[in-house]
Amino acid sequence: MKQTVKEFNTSRIRGNEVILSKKNKVLKRFFNLDTNAYMEGALPSRTKEMLGLVASMVLRCDDCIKYHLEKCREQRLSDEEVYEVFAIANIVGGSIVIPHTRRAGEFWEALKED
Amino acid sequence: MKQTVKEFNTSRIRGNEVILSKKNKVLKRFFNLDTNAYMEGALPSRTKEMLGLVASMVLRCDDCIKYHLEKCREQRLSDEEVYEVFAIANIVGGSIVIPHTRRAGEFWEALKED
Amino acid sequence: MKQTVKEFNTSRIRGNEVILSKKNKVLKRFFNLDTNAYMEGALPSRTKEMLGLVASMVLRCDDCIKYHLEKCREQRLSDEEVYEVFAIANIVGGSIVIPHTRRAGEFWEALKED
Amino acid sequence: MKQTVKEFNTSRIRGNEVILSKKNKVLKRFFNLDTNAYMEGALPSRTKEMLGLVASMVLRCDDCIKYHLEKCREQRLSDEEVYEVFAIANIVGGSIVIPHTRRAGEFWEALKED
Amino acid sequence: MKQTVKEFNTSRIRGNEVILSKKNKVLKRFFNLDTNAYMEGALPSRTKEMLGLVASMVLRCDDCIKYHLEKCREQRLSDEEVYEVFAIANIVGGSIVIPHTRRAGEFWEALKED
Amino acid sequence: MKQTVKEFNTSRIRGNEVILSKKNKVLKRFFNLDTNAYMEGALPSRTKEMLGLVASMVLRCDDCIKYHLEKCREQRLSDEEVYEVFAIANIVGGSIVIPHTRRAGEFWEALKED
Repeated sequence: MKQTVKEFNTSRIRGNEVILSKKNKVLKRFFNLDTNAYMEGALPSRTKEMLGLVASMVLRCDDCIKYHLEKCREQRLSDEEVYEVFAIANIVGGSIVIPHTRRAGEFWEALKED
Repeated sequence: MKQTVKEFNTSRIRGNEVILSKKNKVLKRFFNLDTNAYMEGALPSRTKEMLGLVASMVLRCDDCIKYHLEKCREQRLSDEEVYEVFAIANIVGGSIVIPHTRRAGEFWEALKED
Repeated sequence: MKQTVKEFNTSRIRGNEVILSKKNKVLKRFFNLDTNAYMEGALPSRTKEMLGLVASMVLRCDDCIKYHLEKCREQRLSDEEVYEVFAIANIVGGSIVIPHTRRAGEFWEALKED
Repeated sequence: MKQTVKEFNTSRIRGNEVILSKKNKVLKRFFNLDTNAYMEGALPSRTKEMLGLVASMVLRCDDCIKYHLEKCREQRLSDEEVYEVFAIANIVGGSIVIPHTRRAGEFWEALKED
Repeated sequence: MKQTVKEFNTSRIRGNEVILSKKNKVLKRFFNLDTNAYMEGALPSRTKEMLGLVASMVLRCDDCIKYHLEKCREQRLSDEEVYEVFAIANIVGGSIVIPHTRRAGEFWEALKED
Repeated sequence: MKQTVKEFNTSRIRGNEVILSKKNKVLKRFFNLDTNAYMEGALPSRTKEMLGLVASMVLRCDDCIKYHLEKCREQRLSDEEVYEVFAIANIVGGSIVIPHTRRAGEFWEALKED
């Protein structure tokens, strides 16, 4: 399954390179801001990554979910913690979040194998 | 084309198993509630499955659409009925529903081959 | 409470008049199509109005919800039937649908007073 | 400004009473589940309320935002913490979240006056 | 009707002041970026304001719509041009955009009275 | 990469044929209206295609994005112009638009190879 994780990261990096090669300043600054938003502050990065994860889930963006799951893995979230985030995402966003939760659950298992 | 249907169901079951193996109570109860919502009541299940289908279409969740199309097939909806649901979904949700309607149309044909 | 219903209808008609006075053909034809979509067909108008209601709820459009509730009232839906539509909308769309359900519930009571 | 908070709570309770008086079981159970999802677990309620807040913001539900802001106030979140949640919501959800952030900011001030 | 426009601007400025007074750097930089995105570039500001308008309409954010309508008025868009933007928003986003189009149409008339 | 473009168009045409073969009048008329909305009017088609593109991006519909990118290519938009549309879409719609921008960027390169 590690393959799943590697493929996601490769495709993510390749796409970012295409975008950034065009030197659009608004996009470049927005990408930086996106990174800054999750940095240690009044709230720890660990909490912020959970916020990023739940927001990605209710907005149903699989790639965003995968990205934040990787970060949550780096922050050593337990299965119980990750699934409580999943639960809130499902209650707030409804049953349309379920298929994304299925894919998130499988990606989380793949991350743990690494 | 039967293959399409089988693959969808296999992947759906596998994902659900991963989720439910974690024993998060909120998710487990939400899954049960999701099943109960479509049961025979003041409204017949047949109507409720159409409600589930149109809601999935305007929210543009392909897996949810496929799931409710399977249920609509079990309820013996005709092509004309299914496409009137599709039409309302497109009018309410706009042209961004069209690509999902294309995939829904092809899945519906696959279901009829079974 | 009848006031609530009257105000909604007045404001709806006034807004439509502003739009249609501009004679944009695409908008005019889209408005017509929107009316046609709910006409008696393979599915009865009664079912179609429920489809319009649930779609409006999961997309969280209060004015659309009110409009379809009026139509559901004309179709003589019972409280039980309306609330089963509400239930499906909440399960599919999640807890963010709850505030809209509160307003829908109050508008439905107002409609019954008429 | 306390008025703002009181009015929101009154209208929220009144709407819930209308809904629950109809005794739809799916809705009743979903309301309970919605409460349970934020209870102390592997994650503390404090974190869960922030998750509920950010999810409500990116989905742009003003009433949900107000509700979770009240809970965040009970959990004694600081201005800095609340605004870091706001920041993530704006980055993930984009500039369409700004008007909701304006209303959230004013409601947060009102809550602090209580 | 000028009142409508004045009230919107006053409330917008007041909300922004509350937010910016908290000195959250991510939010401050995001607000600046939001302004920069519409500046003259390879595309003229006039086109960019129309892009902002149509995006706000399909995402159904009334305050964002009003803001971009003001900018479109400054750019001297004709009724015909504004309504062609409205038409595309309705086709892409569906009938749930209609209530927002009604409010947009009335606000546009108010802007022209100024 | 030309392959990517060809595959998209083939699958799009095949799906449309399935839908139109069912002769649902509302869908047929909606498809026609969708085409008409982008025709030369008070606004040139070139501008309208950019409006369609930005709307598709903030609503995060990859197939709609690809379709409008093809049209933007026919209208000879420059890289700078396309990326200014991308930038507005990201600012309005937030970081959840980034994965769609990655795929859009790659498809745009594929279109230029043709």
